[in-house]
Amino acid sequence: MSEYKQRVGRLQHKLQTGGFDGMVVTQNVDLYYLAGSMQTGYLIVPASGDPKFFVRRSVARAEEESAWPVEPLGSLREFAGQLGAAFPDLAATTGRSPVKLAAEFDVLPVQLFQRLQQSLAHVEWKDGSALIRETRMIKSPFEIEAIRSAARVINDAFEDAFGWLKPGMTELEAMSRMEYFVRERGHIGIMRLRGYNQEVITGMLGAGDAAATPTYFDGPAGGLGLSAASPQSSSRRPFETNEPILMDVGCCIGGYVIDQTRTVVFGSLPDDLAYAYDASERILRSAEGLLRPGTVCEQLYAESLRLADDAGLADHYMGYGRDQVKFLGHGIGLEVDELPVLARGFNYPLEAGMVIAVEPKFTFPGRGVVGIENSYAITADGFEKLTISREGLIRL
Amino acid sequence: MSEYKQRVGRLQHKLQTGGFDGMVVTQNVDLYYLAGSMQTGYLIVPASGDPKFFVRRSVARAEEESAWPVEPLGSLREFAGQLGAAFPDLAATTGRSPVKLAAEFDVLPVQLFQRLQQSLAHVEWKDGSALIRETRMIKSPFEIEAIRSAARVINDAFEDAFGWLKPGMTELEAMSRMEYFVRERGHIGIMRLRGYNQEVITGMLGAGDAAATPTYFDGPAGGLGLSAASPQSSSRRPFETNEPILMDVGCCIGGYVIDQTRTVVFGSLPDDLAYAYDASERILRSAEGLLRPGTVCEQLYAESLRLADDAGLADHYMGYGRDQVKFLGHGIGLEVDELPVLARGFNYPLEAGMVIAVEPKFTFPGRGVVGIENSYAITADGFEKLTISREGLIRL
Repeated sequence: MSEYKQRVGRLQHKLQTGGFDGMVVTQNVDLYYLAGSMQTGYLIVPASGDPKFFVRRSVARAEEESAWPVEPLGSLREFAGQLGAAFPDLAATTGRSPVKLAAEFDVLPVQLFQRLQQSLAHVEWKDGSALIRETRMIKSPFEIEAIRSAARVINDAFEDAFGWLKPGMTELEAMSRMEYFVRERGHIGIMRLRGYNQEVITGMLGAGDAAATPTYFDGPAGGLGLSAASPQSSSRRPFETNEPILMDVGCCIGGYVIDQTRTVVFGSLPDDLAYAYDASERILRSAEGLLRPGTVCEQLYAESLRLADDAGLADHYMGYGRDQVKFLGHGIGLEVDELPVLARGFNYPLEAGMVIAVEPKFTFPGRGVVGIENSYAITADGFEKLTISREGLIRL
Repeated sequence: MSEYKQRVGRLQHKLQTGGFDGMVVTQNVDLYYLAGSMQTGYLIVPASGDPKFFVRRSVARAEEESAWPVEPLGSLREFAGQLGAAFPDLAATTGRSPVKLAAEFDVLPVQLFQRLQQSLAHVEWKDGSALIRETRMIKSPFEIEAIRSAARVINDAFEDAFGWLKPGMTELEAMSRMEYFVRERGHIGIMRLRGYNQEVITGMLGAGDAAATPTYFDGPAGGLGLSAASPQSSSRRPFETNEPILMDVGCCIGGYVIDQTRTVVFGSLPDDLAYAYDASERILRSAEGLLRPGTVCEQLYAESLRLADDAGLADHYMGYGRDQVKFLGHGIGLEVDELPVLARGFNYPLEAGMVIAVEPKFTFPGRGVVGIENSYAITADGFEKLTISREGLIRL
């Protein structure tokens, strides 16, 4: 309960600073973060005072799960009345300017938003996505422990895979088996993403030219995928010797994700790819040197770009050609695409409690992707590496 | 190509009837349906003439996949110019009323919508969700064959599971193993859903009281799930003898889903649950008697309610108490929650080419869920049962 009080308190501080009267939270992950329950409904967070969870279904389940009082949600027509009764300050009163409410414009569908607009007249709606994403950006010790648990599971999955990966096996066979391993141990089945149209099951496991195939996915390594209906990650291509196999695989345990990458080869890599792999480790070490409170996020990206350029690999860094992505890493937590982003324009200084995946990679069209990715928690005086898997190029 | 011409042609007919000048399609599944590619971008479908796909990434991949011409998408600021050059009729011209464009308001996030609004002035935006969902509601022979392929895979998965399901095994162990089976055979990892906040990996596999636990999920059987962070489907509860095990498990092969349910028991069911299972089969048979062009969707639901009531099981039908859901079935295709819905207020008459999952189920709190679900294609003179798995209560 103190966890939820603190989370809501931090959001309320931002609501007050932004001049909001409150926030209507609708997204499953945000609901879980603020109330401990992702039943279908609206969590009303007033700028001050306790929230209330108006639930469509399951009310019974929400009552068990929710940190805040639950009230069954009537029709949207009645919602204004329900809301007004629970939060007199949020009800429109004569002689007062419109109530200013935040909502998650980054995920809220237009249709539902329009229904809320119709149902709650006299509300001035504003985008509250940044408020909730910035609140979630700083993890509590409880959350970091949850990510450590996920890190242990994925490390076991990698070590298990190192034991059975074989040339001739297809990307899909390998990915399926790793997914089975983590699923049996509590992986919820997907790694949740906030971005529209983005999907991640457990990540991307791909080899050679297939791994280097660009995709719509907002990450450095796409993958051929199974077909145009699932155009990313593993395909039915078999592994060969002396080519890089990129294992960018995570899992979601108890709601929290871990994200990590290792590069594997049967035999040995061609010299230029081995050189690029070493460059990715150098960039990671350089980033570690800057992982402490105060470092500005975009500085981490700029420094990594400089190192990639020094290595003569700028064209291959984080994708190739017009399919390059422009970041070095991203926050993780309940979702894989959290704040902060290590990219130009992100001026957040690192703070204790941030958890970020740092993933320098190099793409060689027709030949493969090499790189490494660790997840880190920022601490008061530096960082804790949450990823516990062995580093270096893995030769099998 | 003729497939995509036909799909777009059917959407264009609806756009013309609705007085639209065109549609801006943004959702991955709709993009795939209309263009054969789900790369990130906007497909512009004019009310007449060929569409064009403005792509952010991957342009290279979209050029390979897309049925329609691809143009790299510049910044959103330049989009109005790009659009006007490609579609002079959609450019705002003096002395003409605003251009009327449809968009997928049911899935489009407010933030992206506002960006489109800013970038394309002089556009009157309207909800085009129903147009695209109704276009997708009627499947082509190609699509029905894709669903047949998925039906074969899931049937193999059920038969395989009937061989290894054992008392003492947990729901999660069983679900993980079934998922591994279908994943190796090309399941993309999730079954896509259109509904906000809704998630399905492969469905729900649950036993006894755990299966009967209500959830937020908009379906008759929720399931306890792993925790409040994933509050549906399988839990770590072991199977016992003489209790119903509900296997509502599907998969997504080549983009198309299949959805089916069987009820399994080690030993035998208590009489009242066996009676309810029989009632579910009776309702399914009765529905089959009505599955032909012309039957109105809500009539199927009403008839099923009547039969549940006649059996004295109305309180248990499709959930229990305030957690009952109010439908008998739903369309399937690229997503699990397609049109038509077999529910009150859905006045679509069945048409050849519709594919629907019919899922009568009965919930007994603390004891379990029993029922059956088949998927059907509506044909010119009746139906084709796409589900090929053996029926009846499965005793192991």
